Amino acid sequence: MTQSLIGQLETPCLVLQMEKVRENILSMQQAADAAGCRLRPHIKTHKMKLFARMQMRAGAAGITCAKVSEAEVMADGGLEDIFIAYPLVGDFRIRRALQLQRRISRLILALDSLEGARALDEAARAAGTVFEVRLEVDTGALRTGICRAQAAGLAKAVAALPGLRLTGIYTFKSLVYQGAPTTDGLLAAREEGELMQQVAAEIREAGVKISDISAGSSPTGAAVAATGMVNEIRPGTYIFKDYMLVKEGAARMEEIAARIFVTVVSTPRPDYAVIDGGTKTFPMDIPLNAPPYFYPGYAIAEGNSDLMLTRMNEEHGMLVSARGETGLRVGQKLALIPIHICTALNMQNQVYLCDGGQLSVERVDARGMLV
Amino acid sequence: MTQSLIGQLETPCLVLQMEKVRENILSMQQAADAAGCRLRPHIKTHKMKLFARMQMRAGAAGITCAKVSEAEVMADGGLEDIFIAYPLVGDFRIRRALQLQRRISRLILALDSLEGARALDEAARAAGTVFEVRLEVDTGALRTGICRAQAAGLAKAVAALPGLRLTGIYTFKSLVYQGAPTTDGLLAAREEGELMQQVAAEIREAGVKISDISAGSSPTGAAVAATGMVNEIRPGTYIFKDYMLVKEGAARMEEIAARIFVTVVSTPRPDYAVIDGGTKTFPMDIPLNAPPYFYPGYAIAEGNSDLMLTRMNEEHGMLVSARGETGLRVGQKLALIPIHICTALNMQNQVYLCDGGQLSVERVDARGMLV
Repeated sequence: MTQSLIGQLETPCLVLQMEKVRENILSMQQAADAAGCRLRPHIKTHKMKLFARMQMRAGAAGITCAKVSEAEVMADGGLEDIFIAYPLVGDFRIRRALQLQRRISRLILALDSLEGARALDEAARAAGTVFEVRLEVDTGALRTGICRAQAAGLAKAVAALPGLRLTGIYTFKSLVYQGAPTTDGLLAAREEGELMQQVAAEIREAGVKISDISAGSSPTGAAVAATGMVNEIRPGTYIFKDYMLVKEGAARMEEIAARIFVTVVSTPRPDYAVIDGGTKTFPMDIPLNAPPYFYPGYAIAEGNSDLMLTRMNEEHGMLVSARGETGLRVGQKLALIPIHICTALNMQNQVYLCDGGQLSVERVDARGMLV
Repeated sequence: MTQSLIGQLETPCLVLQMEKVRENILSMQQAADAAGCRLRPHIKTHKMKLFARMQMRAGAAGITCAKVSEAEVMADGGLEDIFIAYPLVGDFRIRRALQLQRRISRLILALDSLEGARALDEAARAAGTVFEVRLEVDTGALRTGICRAQAAGLAKAVAALPGLRLTGIYTFKSLVYQGAPTTDGLLAAREEGELMQQVAAEIREAGVKISDISAGSSPTGAAVAATGMVNEIRPGTYIFKDYMLVKEGAARMEEIAARIFVTVVSTPRPDYAVIDGGTKTFPMDIPLNAPPYFYPGYAIAEGNSDLMLTRMNEEHGMLVSARGETGLRVGQKLALIPIHICTALNMQNQVYLCDGGQLSVERVDARGMLV
């Protein structure tokens, strides 16, 4: 970015390079297309109608959300085919899902328990409708998702509920291989495809017809599509990419489309400088137990590899230098690369888009949509 | 809260008990009044016009903000006396401060460098006005604030600038004593008062008249007021209190006014349960190097002291039990006490207020105001 453009920024702020965004959208779409696999991007990363529409125009089959309130925002933006990939539990959520279903052409809900399935079934029947649902299967991430051994039994029970139409299974596995973290995306993707094929086969043997096998995150998406063992992938982070994805071997630094610009507000001593962004700007959800050399601080200072953001308060970020002296001046603007882009966007009300040498401001439509 | 009220909550959500909020506002105001010290609460905790007005009605002398965009929101809410306790650096911020000053009766800005002072001075003179400013002094927190030994020299230089009117000094020290963290609030407060008195005396000896000596956070506020060595305190967290403040010896559990309610969405195995709030709901800015027994997870499950929130993704919170089995059911609602309330509120678009057995929803007006 030119100095003149940087001069226009009110910091701290997040800037998205649209040329890189378009390239990232295109390359994941091409990988999915080449594998004959549908791409249903997760909007958790961008949270913006604009980017969801760009992904659809590029060839996506639909979008993925985590929460019903996010899906409502996307429906307001004209998105018509939405999968809420999160067990839809709670009367308040089911009520909103029923209303949402009336507004769009296809809404797919998720479940991973019989209790959850029964509540959805009852609500659908009471409203005189049917919910399309997918069953979440745990393939090693140890969060939501039924254990694989119990999947076929639950699928059979769900298929018997008249208010539900079970059409598929899905998982989030990311970089887990044989139960432990890995940085080998190909190995993780191969296992992901095989485990999902196995579960699908068991469900079909139990007499339940399912058509959709959905998997794939940004680190494994293209590779799991290429296995031919799933027919849908749901990556999110690939649209902007971040330092975490680089460290996972799933992106190159030059593909990262997001920068956080900050201003140096104080240099009380030569050995540290204070920037105008702290924990309200830079996320702290660095993977647990990551060795310190893996993430040298809470963000990477672009073009200043000796600078490290090692300490923060809400509005204060303390930059230290490996050389001892930061050499920074009060008023100077710096570009930092966030470690995790999804939670960084969640803290911004708006972001700058930089496109063809022009800046514009766009609202982060679905930030903070938690319900 | 009654089961009927809990049933109305759309989770994950933050609920504020108004009876406790009023008590917390009153007790800090009484402590300041008894010491003959002004209270200028920091709005960083609540970020809401409603609570700033409540604090003013209870007797506050004005309010404190960190950023000009927060101050603008508060001015929209009728707040007329605002101190932005953060070095006001950057043309974009100075422009907004000039506009803000025209709208309210008193705006106090902050600086901690000559570069910062000169930019403010120039802008004020160009606009034909004068900025009231305070000088930030570092008393051990090692973030913004000029080193004490250089404070008198900078004060003299600032006093010579015609566009600025230097009326005071301020610091944020919190629980630091002789350069290291402490949990002895009385000791930290005594040192805070003494250091600020010393700096004020040196500045006055240099021929600069200042009237305001401002210090005091939630852990030290009442105690530093009681020393009689400062004439203003700026605590923020005291209005809601949180688990961190309890661990710092500065609050009792029963004084905490905030709860985060969540719903159990999945219990795939007996040894953990998944709730519908993760890193987008529960902040991770736990003090660095805090021993694990100090903060047993990212939040405290009220009435379920064996439950620990030990692992999170953006929308997933994994609860484990010290007893091995969580015993939680899908659909169950739980109340959790956040460790740090300020950053928890920053992630919410709105909060529930619970008052006299009634729930209402209020917008978090200044959340995400980073500029």
